[in-house]
Amino acid sequence: MSKSVFYHAGCPVCISAEHDIIELIGKDNVDIVHFGEDNSRINEAENAGVKSVPALVTPNGNVLHINFGASMEAVKG
Amino acid sequence: MSKSVFYHAGCPVCISAEHDIIELIGKDNVDIVHFGEDNSRINEAENAGVKSVPALVTPNGNVLHINFGASMEAVKG
Repeated sequence: MSKSVFYHAGCPVCISAEHDIIELIGKDNVDIVHFGEDNSRINEAENAGVKSVPALVTPNGNVLHINFGASMEAVKG
Repeated sequence: MSKSVFYHAGCPVCISAEHDIIELIGKDNVDIVHFGEDNSRINEAENAGVKSVPALVTPNGNVLHINFGASMEAVKG
């Protein structure tokens, strides 16, 4: 099984959700992408269907938008 | 570790998220509560901080609102 990918932008809601996701599914099962550290992956996230962060893209490609930290527009701004 | 609780209301967004959550964390690690089958647990969910469904309440009590299926008001209506 390929990994899930958790996209976030460092906002408090994001960090809280990151901790929860790691606790729930295990840190070996998820790639964490922080747009503040690697904004080159914003396009990848949008192509996957990510509309806001934090969001988890599952191994089968579904997007789970978790709570609401920031829109992708805000992330790019 | 106590289980997570996944609250939903049978909407398409809920069912899709239910499948994803079960795949991600394992069905033995989550209690599934369907308000259409057991509306006595709506109060419990609201007390836990659930504002909309589907939502996952983690073992440490954090609420992860996942995508958006329906508000709790709609669930009660």
